Amino acid sequence: MANSADLDSLAIELEDVQQAAERIRQYAHVTPVLTCDTLDRLAGRQLYLKCENLQKTGAFKFRGACNAVQSLSEEEASRGVITHSSGNHAGALASAAAARCIKAYIVVPEGTPQCKLDAIAGYGAQLEICAPGIEAREAACRRLQQATGAVFIPPYNYAPVMAGQGTVALELLKQVQGLDAIIVCVSGGGLISGIATAAKGLNPDITILAAEPSGRNDAADVAAALQAGHLVEIDPPDTIADGLKARMGTLTWPVIRQRVDGAIVVSEEDIVNAMQLCYERAKVVVEPSGAAALAAALNPSFQQDPRWQHLRRVGIILSGGNADLAGKGLWASFLRR
Amino acid sequence: MANSADLDSLAIELEDVQQAAERIRQYAHVTPVLTCDTLDRLAGRQLYLKCENLQKTGAFKFRGACNAVQSLSEEEASRGVITHSSGNHAGALASAAAARCIKAYIVVPEGTPQCKLDAIAGYGAQLEICAPGIEAREAACRRLQQATGAVFIPPYNYAPVMAGQGTVALELLKQVQGLDAIIVCVSGGGLISGIATAAKGLNPDITILAAEPSGRNDAADVAAALQAGHLVEIDPPDTIADGLKARMGTLTWPVIRQRVDGAIVVSEEDIVNAMQLCYERAKVVVEPSGAAALAAALNPSFQQDPRWQHLRRVGIILSGGNADLAGKGLWASFLRR
Repeated sequence: MANSADLDSLAIELEDVQQAAERIRQYAHVTPVLTCDTLDRLAGRQLYLKCENLQKTGAFKFRGACNAVQSLSEEEASRGVITHSSGNHAGALASAAAARCIKAYIVVPEGTPQCKLDAIAGYGAQLEICAPGIEAREAACRRLQQATGAVFIPPYNYAPVMAGQGTVALELLKQVQGLDAIIVCVSGGGLISGIATAAKGLNPDITILAAEPSGRNDAADVAAALQAGHLVEIDPPDTIADGLKARMGTLTWPVIRQRVDGAIVVSEEDIVNAMQLCYERAKVVVEPSGAAALAAALNPSFQQDPRWQHLRRVGIILSGGNADLAGKGLWASFLRR
Repeated sequence: MANSADLDSLAIELEDVQQAAERIRQYAHVTPVLTCDTLDRLAGRQLYLKCENLQKTGAFKFRGACNAVQSLSEEEASRGVITHSSGNHAGALASAAAARCIKAYIVVPEGTPQCKLDAIAGYGAQLEICAPGIEAREAACRRLQQATGAVFIPPYNYAPVMAGQGTVALELLKQVQGLDAIIVCVSGGGLISGIATAAKGLNPDITILAAEPSGRNDAADVAAALQAGHLVEIDPPDTIADGLKARMGTLTWPVIRQRVDGAIVVSEEDIVNAMQLCYERAKVVVEPSGAAALAAALNPSFQQDPRWQHLRRVGIILSGGNADLAGKGLWASFLRR
């Protein structure tokens, strides 16, 4: 009975994801699935890399933002959309708004790298720089929202965004037959809640696993929450995976508790090793967050766990590719002799 | 009449490429074609990136090597294959031999980066280290060939290799309708001769353009040869595009003269800029050579040339992705704070 009450109250179901897929069809890329013999050998399984790093704006975030924007009424859309973010949600919302020819206001904290500001502005959004810190961001966002009437589009704890992210799984299950599992990085939980809802809706036997960084401060809250059965208070992870610093929300957590089968915790070194394999073997650019799911698939805690031995065909979501390589001096180094 | 004699003597025709496609079908990847709004804006045309950097062994070279290996008789195959190369042909031949379960002997010069040696050995090939320089390489290769009886597979000036490389164009023309042109990097000419043969065989109106580095020593021989109508003696280019240092061969040049419409010369800076765009916008890893065709498409000498104004839908071959990023210190820099 408790279960039935839980189910009734979940933010999204398979049909929501299917409707999202219809809404975003003409705007989002159908991203390719890559395979790589070397990675299969290392993993001891067949891995299918779903390349959301090749999605528009370089991350899966475009799907959720686009579904949210396309779900607005004409009246709402005419007022524009607004969010606060220094990450992939900002570029995604800017681009999704441009696709509907409406205004986007993006509040970004001081200190955001210039390349990210350029990308967001390049999609035609209006940037508002605020002081760093979540309170300053929220306050600046509220002020601008009151002044403009724009509709606030949260980055993950919002049903249209969760449903949009779930379209990744609809595509992947069409592209690869007989998948046993999907490994997905988790932060706020928008992506994994959408994917788990879509994939389990189509195939209740599929296993959905979260990949989460412990960070340098041992802050794996999803693993702890799944074990405890309730949200736990842990500081955000101090990690190079800057897309994975958020905490699960009030809408994403109930879906995750119900539909995600376990969490695999990865270290900073695991993430960088997986990045290197993505670049050198799969030949695709991922940001640190984007390599977390592959890091999980290669992790001994996954490979040696008897619960996961039967998972032979495993989807790996490469979630994003917005790595700041110029900031690492890479291009200058190619011209230097 | 001279033309007709030329045509009779060309090393490959469309049917050779079509037969190659049949031979390699079960071994090679059908590589994806990516599009990117930002690149289209920069180019002022629609660009279709054919991702041979995502081909097996990270380069188009696998196609030609695989066709050559699959074309051998049982008796020839039983003696194994041999080549000398420090580049993508070595890994490609090693992997193609492994796919037919035959031996591969690869002669590599001293000083070849360890990561490349590891990759070649990882495909199961037997490595023979020799002194640097083309004479030493050829001598070592001959000795080993005499000792083993292995069949020598040249990197480009060899009809089965040229035909195999041409399968890129068969795929691309199936994947993208109504292409006006294809831009292909050129070095020994195996790739562009195969592509020009296949593409013009299917659509005589398509334009085929070579992208070639001038290097720091202004050594663009393809442009010079096409202008002169005969091969010209120029030193190999001193370029970061280490896959583009060879010179056209006796079999590739006649095909190129007949079927390639022009050459676009790119600088070292052009190549690195195009690499950056590939990584940051298209999110794929290319080596310097792999970015040369994109560099050409963005070059003013192409964009402003009245002969090419009508080319609206342009295929760009991203030829390879084997960049030595570890050697640039990239992974260490991600873990450093």
